[in-house]
Amino acid sequence: MNFASDNVTGAAPDILQAIVDANEGNLPSYGADPLTARMQQRLCQMFERDVAVFPVATGTAANALALSVLSPPWGTVFCHADSHIYTDECGAPELMTQGARLQPLPGPHGKLTPEVLAAALAEAPVGFVHGMQPAALSLTQATEAGTCYTVAEVAALTALARQHRLRVHMDGARFANAIAHLGCSPADVTWKAGVDILSLGATKNGALCAEAVIFFDPALAVDFGYRRKRAAQLFSKMRFVSAQFDAWLTDDRWLTLARHANAMAARLAAGLQALPGLRLRDPVEANELFLRMPDQVTDGLLAAGFQFYRWEGDVVRMVTAWNTSASDVDHLIQAAAELTKIT
Amino acid sequence: MNFASDNVTGAAPDILQAIVDANEGNLPSYGADPLTARMQQRLCQMFERDVAVFPVATGTAANALALSVLSPPWGTVFCHADSHIYTDECGAPELMTQGARLQPLPGPHGKLTPEVLAAALAEAPVGFVHGMQPAALSLTQATEAGTCYTVAEVAALTALARQHRLRVHMDGARFANAIAHLGCSPADVTWKAGVDILSLGATKNGALCAEAVIFFDPALAVDFGYRRKRAAQLFSKMRFVSAQFDAWLTDDRWLTLARHANAMAARLAAGLQALPGLRLRDPVEANELFLRMPDQVTDGLLAAGFQFYRWEGDVVRMVTAWNTSASDVDHLIQAAAELTKIT
Amino acid sequence: MNFASDNVTGAAPDILQAIVDANEGNLPSYGADPLTARMQQRLCQMFERDVAVFPVATGTAANALALSVLSPPWGTVFCHADSHIYTDECGAPELMTQGARLQPLPGPHGKLTPEVLAAALAEAPVGFVHGMQPAALSLTQATEAGTCYTVAEVAALTALARQHRLRVHMDGARFANAIAHLGCSPADVTWKAGVDILSLGATKNGALCAEAVIFFDPALAVDFGYRRKRAAQLFSKMRFVSAQFDAWLTDDRWLTLARHANAMAARLAAGLQALPGLRLRDPVEANELFLRMPDQVTDGLLAAGFQFYRWEGDVVRMVTAWNTSASDVDHLIQAAAELTKIT
Amino acid sequence: MNFASDNVTGAAPDILQAIVDANEGNLPSYGADPLTARMQQRLCQMFERDVAVFPVATGTAANALALSVLSPPWGTVFCHADSHIYTDECGAPELMTQGARLQPLPGPHGKLTPEVLAAALAEAPVGFVHGMQPAALSLTQATEAGTCYTVAEVAALTALARQHRLRVHMDGARFANAIAHLGCSPADVTWKAGVDILSLGATKNGALCAEAVIFFDPALAVDFGYRRKRAAQLFSKMRFVSAQFDAWLTDDRWLTLARHANAMAARLAAGLQALPGLRLRDPVEANELFLRMPDQVTDGLLAAGFQFYRWEGDVVRMVTAWNTSASDVDHLIQAAAELTKIT
Repeated sequence: MNFASDNVTGAAPDILQAIVDANEGNLPSYGADPLTARMQQRLCQMFERDVAVFPVATGTAANALALSVLSPPWGTVFCHADSHIYTDECGAPELMTQGARLQPLPGPHGKLTPEVLAAALAEAPVGFVHGMQPAALSLTQATEAGTCYTVAEVAALTALARQHRLRVHMDGARFANAIAHLGCSPADVTWKAGVDILSLGATKNGALCAEAVIFFDPALAVDFGYRRKRAAQLFSKMRFVSAQFDAWLTDDRWLTLARHANAMAARLAAGLQALPGLRLRDPVEANELFLRMPDQVTDGLLAAGFQFYRWEGDVVRMVTAWNTSASDVDHLIQAAAELTKIT
Repeated sequence: MNFASDNVTGAAPDILQAIVDANEGNLPSYGADPLTARMQQRLCQMFERDVAVFPVATGTAANALALSVLSPPWGTVFCHADSHIYTDECGAPELMTQGARLQPLPGPHGKLTPEVLAAALAEAPVGFVHGMQPAALSLTQATEAGTCYTVAEVAALTALARQHRLRVHMDGARFANAIAHLGCSPADVTWKAGVDILSLGATKNGALCAEAVIFFDPALAVDFGYRRKRAAQLFSKMRFVSAQFDAWLTDDRWLTLARHANAMAARLAAGLQALPGLRLRDPVEANELFLRMPDQVTDGLLAAGFQFYRWEGDVVRMVTAWNTSASDVDHLIQAAAELTKIT
Repeated sequence: MNFASDNVTGAAPDILQAIVDANEGNLPSYGADPLTARMQQRLCQMFERDVAVFPVATGTAANALALSVLSPPWGTVFCHADSHIYTDECGAPELMTQGARLQPLPGPHGKLTPEVLAAALAEAPVGFVHGMQPAALSLTQATEAGTCYTVAEVAALTALARQHRLRVHMDGARFANAIAHLGCSPADVTWKAGVDILSLGATKNGALCAEAVIFFDPALAVDFGYRRKRAAQLFSKMRFVSAQFDAWLTDDRWLTLARHANAMAARLAAGLQALPGLRLRDPVEANELFLRMPDQVTDGLLAAGFQFYRWEGDVVRMVTAWNTSASDVDHLIQAAAELTKIT
Repeated sequence: MNFASDNVTGAAPDILQAIVDANEGNLPSYGADPLTARMQQRLCQMFERDVAVFPVATGTAANALALSVLSPPWGTVFCHADSHIYTDECGAPELMTQGARLQPLPGPHGKLTPEVLAAALAEAPVGFVHGMQPAALSLTQATEAGTCYTVAEVAALTALARQHRLRVHMDGARFANAIAHLGCSPADVTWKAGVDILSLGATKNGALCAEAVIFFDPALAVDFGYRRKRAAQLFSKMRFVSAQFDAWLTDDRWLTLARHANAMAARLAAGLQALPGLRLRDPVEANELFLRMPDQVTDGLLAAGFQFYRWEGDVVRMVTAWNTSASDVDHLIQAAAELTKIT
């Protein structure tokens, strides 16, 4: 039973079927196919406005290329110290922005606060030719701590960003999980709340490989086709990525899948935090749990074949997904319960 | 009937099935799965030696990242003026090498010759601190003109390269078609003939999306994992790319698919060059035809719904693929024949 | 007697004296000093308009940073195949533009022609996302062949460039020599003729180290302060560079120095081309001679201690400077004359 | 009376004279002149071993290019949060390393400690392909807080660095001031203490413009000539930079100049800290003072024409130099004393 990550999963059946269906016949390459057009339409509907959409190969690509639009090479991008762009992309943002600097900021439960951002901006050397210039803010939704920014929280941060002439990026590798939790519309927490570009990920939520850069102001995307190609991120047989997005977006499937993952995380959290000695490090608002767990429980669960990560100290990370079963969750809880009883 | 490109096709049935089969269950991400291990083994068998294998998203990524290993930022990469890296990658090699220079060279039928390379090297400012330094040679196999380098031709070029301390890259987006034509082993025309790194593409030959960088000297790959991740080319659900390669490599399927595509190109060439006023620009040795065709034939075929590219002047390009049918080929030939009779 | 280059010279006396004079007292650093202000004023006068001026350390820096403003990383810069940016800057343009491509073009006597540029533009893949995009034209004035573009020639090239939405850079490492030859005003052959940015060099013409990027449209320079600093080209004690420019610009000293150098080149050319077997490869319009010379003369002059470069084949390059004496020129001519008589 | 920075000064008389003397005659360019050779010899003597020396235009250039040798683009460079490379170079290290990341660390009085470095290294994702890899340590000597690392402190930090396979860079923009304070040999606190590359600055200590990258292991410099040229940092008339270094190194002039600057700082510190309400933020070990000063004193001194920087809060920075006079120092002290008496 694998709780290591949401990327250990395969594709949801309907999404796999969409790939199979898309395999019929010859179609124009590089995105000039009808499936890509339909996918773009669906995304416009999802976001209630015209958006410019650029599928890419990985979430890292989406993030790094989005930032390349928002920051010059001498710019600073403010982000959470635990953000994927800072800790898990091996310098891709630095490569694609050609040298911009990520400035990691602290914040409880994986979230930046206006106070923290304001303090960083207060020290930024604006207009000082020797210093890198504040350029962008990057938020992760849902965060790396399994929490979600509320619409108001996003709006407060982007308002501050605007005052300082920063553009705003949102890393939405788990965007669906955030919407499932927030219950708002995708528009509410993105462009209506001041976000310029979204990295939208479906891979962790039921696709095989489907990531896209979404521009809420298509004018910002004027040269993005060149950026994407130059970054070697333009798929020749794009229809197969588009087909995944298309199926993911059909009948709110993305939301159904994400709700299931979130529900499994909640079930797991409820069961585990009821056990003696276990407590959550962060609220569980998406599909990730970070919890403090006694060593004997952690060791015992891993020995029993449950898969998850030791994170830091006595904290472990468990991730649920579109395909996590309630019985697997309950097995894990029960096993943990047994382990807590050993003396 | 689409002869526009070999990337307008879907996946061959067995390769699609492999994706479906790979969808079962949860597996480690980022290439730590058994399918990736098996694919690597198959590639070692294919090349008759230990190779280091790195799947990436696109052929452009494979080429650009391979070159980043072979050339410093102040290096020169010699390539054919029609090569994909020079004409069709929007600066990806320049991005990934961080500024190396591609030096385009002429050569008949898409092929470089030792004479042309020697002349370029004779003018290279070796050791002159003001000049960019010769670093690498990139060959395309099969070439952009639909021809193939013989083993002896490759060996002669790489020998010259070695004398001048250049490393050698091969762009094998249509490597299978080249092997199908040459009848040699993959090893013969790569590392045994002096090639250091191969970009191996399956996408044009029956896969959905399966490209890899192959290092014949694994020591050269020591830091390539970082390069790939930094370039945002590390798939999380890598098993689905590996599954395609695995199926492609099983039972010499890659060769069967390529032979078919080549045979269809040969059939098309034979039929068309027999018509009055049509003649091949280049020998047809893989799955591409470049032929001079009277305007009335070109116009007529396009009007009739046949898809292919006007290339330059009166030259058109037609590409066959693993799924091109003999009847489609014959239809096109017949239609062309009719058009040549109009006066 | 050294005819190897115009950078083997020291500073002209008045310019050296300006450095000595500038040494008095403490002054604000990084260009906030009165000498820098005065130098900027003088350059506005020289060019008959407001210009934005940025001193940098080398001509290579001026060129590469100028191009970084005019081309995106996926852009193509058209230049002469013999241009300094293409042959003598070891990839600095590629570094500063972050990967733009220099496309070398042929042209007689070091000069591009509208025909050559038009042919290159006709093949440029404008709007084709796979191809690098035409971005800029770079002209060298005086050229690397010791010739000068006329005002009409510059205007014809920039008009063509504008039609294709290219911006225009001029490498003026020997700009003074060009003006001395042309007899026009500096404005005539730069912004009035369609040039956007000029690399203006004084180092070869009497300074120790004085190079600057001149923007004819200051709005283009909006972020250039960051570019310069980031490229490590912002001198702390800038007054010493400014002092050199100031002295160079005072009383048309730059023109006097350049006229002398040109006159010495003309004298050398006249003397040498009168000798049997010697003939100029290019017209001598600035301070460089390229001439075909029999081996026995070349060998003999070098053996006698005259310094100059064998260029290619039987062509040699000789360069005169602000400090070349007529007697040195005559000595060389006489020595060559003697050598032509040996049988 | 200017205490704003040590770069508001001109050149020391002997160094200016060296420039004047170097102006005689024509000499080979790009460093192939006898003055450059002599300067290199003097630096070998200064450091008691063969060193490879590369003059560049600015301290920023020296730092950024040195780091480009020590870190791959996916590497992390550990440095103090107040270091020049982190706060004052506008991304030059990121440009020259092509994207490496500077990780700012805290530390008292501008100095890193083994504890702080060890903590950072303990969290570094060594071998984790998603994370940037620890590559180098950069120390500033004297520090940005006007303090100096002892030989033992440097050795302790570099020993830790070696254990983690980091290479070590030292930013020596004020290296002379550090040696003047420490009383050790230049070798003791550099290569003998584990430093790989030194940025050696003379500009702040009596030169006009003289900065160099010093490699203690010349093998590390094998391709540095290309790096320097490509970064547009190769002076054509290098003899004038070399002449400055030569004069600076003659008769231990560098040490005499630095001792004077340090003595003036000590005198200033002694006088000011004796005043009520003024106290040093950091020990004064070089030529910079950071002191807390009541607003009325700060305002009064600035109003009286003394030049220095408000740093942060009530802290001001005052810098002395080779040309600071004791009487200027005493004037400032006296003026401050008067201001403290106002009620």
